[in-house]
Amino acid sequence: MAGLKIAVIGGGSSYTPEIIEGFINRHHELPVKEIHLVDIPEGMWKLEIVGALAKRMVARAGVDIEIVLTTNRRAAIEKADFVTTQFRVGGLAARAKDERIPLKYDVLGQETTGPGGFAKAMRTIPVILEICNDIEELAPNAWLINFTNPAGLITEVVQKYTNVKVIGLCNVPIGMVKMVANILEVESKRVKIDFVGLNHLVWGSKVLVDGEDVTQIVLNKLSDGAALTMKNIPDLKWDSEFLNSLGMLPCPYHRYFYMMEDMVKDQQKAIEEGGKGTRAEQVLEVEKGLFEVYKDDTLQEKPQQLEKRGGAYYSDAAVSLISAIHNNKKQLHVVNVKNNGTIIGLPKDVVIEVTAVVDKTGAHPIQVGEISPKIYGLIQGVKAFEELTVEAGVKGDYQMALQAMAVHPLVPSVTVAKKLLDDILIENKEYLPQFQSKIQELISKFGE
Amino acid sequence: MAGLKIAVIGGGSSYTPEIIEGFINRHHELPVKEIHLVDIPEGMWKLEIVGALAKRMVARAGVDIEIVLTTNRRAAIEKADFVTTQFRVGGLAARAKDERIPLKYDVLGQETTGPGGFAKAMRTIPVILEICNDIEELAPNAWLINFTNPAGLITEVVQKYTNVKVIGLCNVPIGMVKMVANILEVESKRVKIDFVGLNHLVWGSKVLVDGEDVTQIVLNKLSDGAALTMKNIPDLKWDSEFLNSLGMLPCPYHRYFYMMEDMVKDQQKAIEEGGKGTRAEQVLEVEKGLFEVYKDDTLQEKPQQLEKRGGAYYSDAAVSLISAIHNNKKQLHVVNVKNNGTIIGLPKDVVIEVTAVVDKTGAHPIQVGEISPKIYGLIQGVKAFEELTVEAGVKGDYQMALQAMAVHPLVPSVTVAKKLLDDILIENKEYLPQFQSKIQELISKFGE
Amino acid sequence: MAGLKIAVIGGGSSYTPEIIEGFINRHHELPVKEIHLVDIPEGMWKLEIVGALAKRMVARAGVDIEIVLTTNRRAAIEKADFVTTQFRVGGLAARAKDERIPLKYDVLGQETTGPGGFAKAMRTIPVILEICNDIEELAPNAWLINFTNPAGLITEVVQKYTNVKVIGLCNVPIGMVKMVANILEVESKRVKIDFVGLNHLVWGSKVLVDGEDVTQIVLNKLSDGAALTMKNIPDLKWDSEFLNSLGMLPCPYHRYFYMMEDMVKDQQKAIEEGGKGTRAEQVLEVEKGLFEVYKDDTLQEKPQQLEKRGGAYYSDAAVSLISAIHNNKKQLHVVNVKNNGTIIGLPKDVVIEVTAVVDKTGAHPIQVGEISPKIYGLIQGVKAFEELTVEAGVKGDYQMALQAMAVHPLVPSVTVAKKLLDDILIENKEYLPQFQSKIQELISKFGE
Amino acid sequence: MAGLKIAVIGGGSSYTPEIIEGFINRHHELPVKEIHLVDIPEGMWKLEIVGALAKRMVARAGVDIEIVLTTNRRAAIEKADFVTTQFRVGGLAARAKDERIPLKYDVLGQETTGPGGFAKAMRTIPVILEICNDIEELAPNAWLINFTNPAGLITEVVQKYTNVKVIGLCNVPIGMVKMVANILEVESKRVKIDFVGLNHLVWGSKVLVDGEDVTQIVLNKLSDGAALTMKNIPDLKWDSEFLNSLGMLPCPYHRYFYMMEDMVKDQQKAIEEGGKGTRAEQVLEVEKGLFEVYKDDTLQEKPQQLEKRGGAYYSDAAVSLISAIHNNKKQLHVVNVKNNGTIIGLPKDVVIEVTAVVDKTGAHPIQVGEISPKIYGLIQGVKAFEELTVEAGVKGDYQMALQAMAVHPLVPSVTVAKKLLDDILIENKEYLPQFQSKIQELISKFGE
Repeated sequence: MAGLKIAVIGGGSSYTPEIIEGFINRHHELPVKEIHLVDIPEGMWKLEIVGALAKRMVARAGVDIEIVLTTNRRAAIEKADFVTTQFRVGGLAARAKDERIPLKYDVLGQETTGPGGFAKAMRTIPVILEICNDIEELAPNAWLINFTNPAGLITEVVQKYTNVKVIGLCNVPIGMVKMVANILEVESKRVKIDFVGLNHLVWGSKVLVDGEDVTQIVLNKLSDGAALTMKNIPDLKWDSEFLNSLGMLPCPYHRYFYMMEDMVKDQQKAIEEGGKGTRAEQVLEVEKGLFEVYKDDTLQEKPQQLEKRGGAYYSDAAVSLISAIHNNKKQLHVVNVKNNGTIIGLPKDVVIEVTAVVDKTGAHPIQVGEISPKIYGLIQGVKAFEELTVEAGVKGDYQMALQAMAVHPLVPSVTVAKKLLDDILIENKEYLPQFQSKIQELISKFGE
Repeated sequence: MAGLKIAVIGGGSSYTPEIIEGFINRHHELPVKEIHLVDIPEGMWKLEIVGALAKRMVARAGVDIEIVLTTNRRAAIEKADFVTTQFRVGGLAARAKDERIPLKYDVLGQETTGPGGFAKAMRTIPVILEICNDIEELAPNAWLINFTNPAGLITEVVQKYTNVKVIGLCNVPIGMVKMVANILEVESKRVKIDFVGLNHLVWGSKVLVDGEDVTQIVLNKLSDGAALTMKNIPDLKWDSEFLNSLGMLPCPYHRYFYMMEDMVKDQQKAIEEGGKGTRAEQVLEVEKGLFEVYKDDTLQEKPQQLEKRGGAYYSDAAVSLISAIHNNKKQLHVVNVKNNGTIIGLPKDVVIEVTAVVDKTGAHPIQVGEISPKIYGLIQGVKAFEELTVEAGVKGDYQMALQAMAVHPLVPSVTVAKKLLDDILIENKEYLPQFQSKIQELISKFGE
Repeated sequence: MAGLKIAVIGGGSSYTPEIIEGFINRHHELPVKEIHLVDIPEGMWKLEIVGALAKRMVARAGVDIEIVLTTNRRAAIEKADFVTTQFRVGGLAARAKDERIPLKYDVLGQETTGPGGFAKAMRTIPVILEICNDIEELAPNAWLINFTNPAGLITEVVQKYTNVKVIGLCNVPIGMVKMVANILEVESKRVKIDFVGLNHLVWGSKVLVDGEDVTQIVLNKLSDGAALTMKNIPDLKWDSEFLNSLGMLPCPYHRYFYMMEDMVKDQQKAIEEGGKGTRAEQVLEVEKGLFEVYKDDTLQEKPQQLEKRGGAYYSDAAVSLISAIHNNKKQLHVVNVKNNGTIIGLPKDVVIEVTAVVDKTGAHPIQVGEISPKIYGLIQGVKAFEELTVEAGVKGDYQMALQAMAVHPLVPSVTVAKKLLDDILIENKEYLPQFQSKIQELISKFGE
Repeated sequence: MAGLKIAVIGGGSSYTPEIIEGFINRHHELPVKEIHLVDIPEGMWKLEIVGALAKRMVARAGVDIEIVLTTNRRAAIEKADFVTTQFRVGGLAARAKDERIPLKYDVLGQETTGPGGFAKAMRTIPVILEICNDIEELAPNAWLINFTNPAGLITEVVQKYTNVKVIGLCNVPIGMVKMVANILEVESKRVKIDFVGLNHLVWGSKVLVDGEDVTQIVLNKLSDGAALTMKNIPDLKWDSEFLNSLGMLPCPYHRYFYMMEDMVKDQQKAIEEGGKGTRAEQVLEVEKGLFEVYKDDTLQEKPQQLEKRGGAYYSDAAVSLISAIHNNKKQLHVVNVKNNGTIIGLPKDVVIEVTAVVDKTGAHPIQVGEISPKIYGLIQGVKAFEELTVEAGVKGDYQMALQAMAVHPLVPSVTVAKKLLDDILIENKEYLPQFQSKIQELISKFGE
């Protein structure tokens, strides 16, 4: 083998130094020869800055990896061994809308959960289908490692509507392991969490240190105020009686469901006059700063400042997954894959987030079986939303989209669902080719 | 056969004339010999009034049915062929609390759905288990026909924790058939609706007249403003685009989910100063009036005024079900029975509301198979609540109760769930033997 | 409605007077206007004889039904309301081969079960697919009522590979009801049997008279030697301990599995010199006699002699099913339909034989749930054979055919499976368009 | 931790040097302190011989393991960390009966498959339940590693009827990996086979070398005559067309099903006058020789001759599994565990043989999903037999036992099933406490 070719779609992202660092650190076991950083013409200026840094990082590390910067996606994908996706259709400006539109109706404004996640999915689906088209044609043996959010839902689109080999990945599970290790003051490699659920809606049903069950100890620590969250999610504390009756570890995103009111209030405060703005608006500032840092010719490694974003452990999760595939490691990873009966009760063809054995032939989930009524209602509620959203986004079906919005557990009524949907379609009109005629109809009815 | 013995638990209810009328009307096919109306000592005055009317009704009809009024439940149950339950633990006063407590937290106040349904279940579970104990001992071959709300959940308690043969029954499906017949201006016996879901959360997946699919026609009529509701549920109109995208007939209770905000506002307005009060408080008035009417010695049949309550068609549903069993009719009825794989995705041992073939050996559901994501999220969300509530109520388990409340789709957060739960426990303290020590703890913490 | 059009494929069958009688007897509720009896040119002589009888029967009954005799299948199907299939590809000569080939290898020779059923399926599949093609084009709203054996397997072909509305029907369940009624000396309409299984492999899991469970009584009677079989199956007696441990009613065809050796010996004896020949050869004689009888111009009704064939109650089953559909009766019939979760453990898309509610929209199975290990092994063993046979027959796939034969519970080894398969293909070469190239290869290897 | 305590039930077996060698070889990672070899008084002479050898082996290896020889099972189990079972109720004499009885009726005579497996299960079940009783009381945290055949069925007994943590293990999968490695001339650690099925009825659905699919290559080699069998199973060659149409790797025991006739003939020949006797009788000879060898005081390691028995790789499989548990390795092992939805279609509570991730908390199967009709019929057929056998053996239920025997795919009829069952019960009378009254009845009917 002459060395691996990697295509990174959305290569101009400020996260890119993360993944470059990951490939450098594992170069001894993962013989990457070329990394193609792909972006769209509008992102060329970012791609050039971050790409130059990537080249300096590789040079400094002394590894033989060629960094290619390009807007030619098809050339990048051709004969690639792995394609990773970290693109964001519409950029942070679109994300800011995802966060602000729902808040008008007192509904959570978040880019992966609820109406914001719906909007992001609608923008992303046409693009991911194009990418998969290219992969089917130009690199049919490539693995697609999808990070693009909502990661579970986008993975389900690929799973249901293409022939591409795909694994969805998120840094939440690995982040939870690291945080729990931190809370327990043990090395993170000694910690294992049995994860079950959906992307951004995953529970740790059991926490083990060296195979011993320490779930209750962790719940006690959390009850006593230990932090378990991510950069982008306010660290509201968990009610002790609730945690103990749950008997499982919620993920940081669960706050959006279990503490819905307080989370909405917190977000609304942020966008009031004098507030700090939505997360997108804060990230915009962080990102500006990052690109200034990246421009510094003397910088030759991933800067500390990158940790202010929510993507910690991202490189670790991604590159170790790719290495597990390439090296046929039969190693456990928490991934987004087809259910296929793993969780009894969910449809067979939907995507779930679960521990799987990863080897050269893919990710093979460990059987879960039946799940508790403490969690199945919420899982099925969100999965129903996801199934409807996938179909709505692929087919450009307004009726299905209305149902998707109406069934989401965070949307209080059909009336609000419809207002949200119409606002989202109108405000994202340049990114939704599949809904063009409906959008024209809405604009002529409501104005832009 | 010497004629059937019926025990009516909660016989002092103002609904009793309904069921008496039912038995009179079907006496030609259902040879009832004795109807034992059972109530608790506090309800004796009502039992005497309504019982006297029942005797006059029977006499007037000229049928040979003995009406027995009693507070001796065991004697009434002994050797009964059918036991029906229409009791209400705590009476309308408790119902009023079920309706008012949630509204304090801007949560729906309803006696069968949401926190109100939870409270009613907690009060009812200890009593239904006692009744089933009696049936197992004194009338092991009897059928229990359960109407007591939340009817699906209470039927699930009996199904999971006793050996009693039970069928749960609700007047909503038969009511929907009558209303659809009315809308379409056809006889109701020509209308069939394929029902699927849970009690008070049941959809008509298809509407047929003489076997022809008229679902879309009915949805159009509803979109145009045709009424489809019940006496106790405000007739808020359905959004046309929503109805068409749903492609199914929602039940009146679905308004509590799909129009949550407006329903809560409507309820809050009712309890403001000068408002009409909660439904319980209105019913209290209706009931007072009814008992005045019932007292009239010259009254010998079910009075018109009874229709102001929500239980229309109740006698029809109940007595025709009993007749289908007794006469081995192999007839279709919409009932609450064990899932057993009928709806794929739901656990096997939970109770669902579905069309079943009823004969002497019970109710045998017609296979449904997989259900649409348009409805499975909500069904599973409410069923998770029900499963947790059943376990909490039977075992007196506060932790399980907290989980039940927290996962209900109408409860916005854990914080609210806990407040609701604690209020409910304290305010119902005389009816919750299973939670006494926890209630003492709460009272010493919060006061009464 | 102007009256119904019926197309009977295989109208020249000696069974035709059965179905004609059925339509005459139900003419008051089933307004049949035209019955098109279709056959192939080679069958024209039979069609003319039996068709003439049909016309005399109709005339004598004084009902307004037009009998049309034709070899133009497409014309017969066009705008038909119901299409029934009773054709036999290759006639009784092919059936005789189905019965004789397996016996060479000491394997059961039967036209619906085991290798004989496989052979018949291979011949039938290309023809049923053509018929369905015609229905899809010319009568898309027609119901196909399939009797052609192996009835469950052929129904599964239609279910999986066409868009035709199909119900498979067999006279075994109705026959068992009649025989049990006879044994118990009650009217057959008072008897209900809960059937579960596959066509020609169906168990009566419970026998009820007027809704009372009499299963044990029936098993006792069978143990004592009461007959429960069909004209075409030797009445070998059931072992009493076996029957009691089974606790269910086996169907007559179960003898082929539970008494395999004796059945094979019985068949081998029949084909020895001086024996009575295979069932096909006996039927050939019966049929000759029947056609002689049919020719009699004075005969105006179904003759007694027809009862010597195995198809008793066939008209009753068929026409009452058609009437249940047409009249939207919501009546219970035992039919072959898609499993769809009715029997837990079997794949969703396979066809099973089970009690269903029949109305204008089709046959809706009553939920069965999990089945006992006493029967699931055999059901799944035969269903695996059926699934493989369906695929082999539709695709002309020799490998799949070899697997089908090898997994059949009555075939003792791969070696025998292969010999059987090759013999069957060669001996049926004129009826197997889908296997032509493989057959040429076999012939050049083995000779004809 | 002070070092592990191991209890080996059936420690006098001639296999014991295998497992002792295993513990010696892994002593660096598995700190075993004590190995208690337990046997019954009748086996004391063997225990002393093999135990002395074990002590010499340990001494020679210089590892600090105490070998304890005992007939006190409870003392051996008390506080054990792992209990392994390799006992054989009735010894080789009983096995010889298992092999000879079926052959009288032309049915396969084998100690784990068919009627022989049934007989062995009946003898083993009362003993394994006693052992589990002891474990529950004296070593509730111990893992039971069960090798005793029929290993899957006995593991299912433990799984369904006790609270003991159990994993069933067999050397067939590891043996297949070694043989495939041999055929392909690669190191066995590079070979992975995806196993699915039941114990002694397991298929390799995919064969991989370094993660690349080489299934077809292996099938081609087998078609060309490469050997894939075990010491105790004749190496009859596979038909090439059959293997290719199967597309999976059969296990050596599959010959008993796919080549049933030839296997029976082969066995019958062995017991004819001048034949080599049944496998038990051959093993008796091998064993005699082994014990002679073991007696040699100078022997300090596992002798070559042991490989003549069928248990190759047994120590490797067992000790590496124990090490995976103890060391929380998260390693893949092929084991017998509760299905729990892993194979869709099989009941949830039965035991299957499948690849699992093994760590300190047990064996967690990798999801399989739906399986092909090529294999599900046979799997379900044998599993139905196993479920009935488990229930019959635990409850001493003759009716269930008759059903078990009647449904086994290798038993041709109820008549034969009953004869087999009665012979087995009578001939094993001293080992079947659960069937004593039935056995008396049979003896008084048939004589002994």
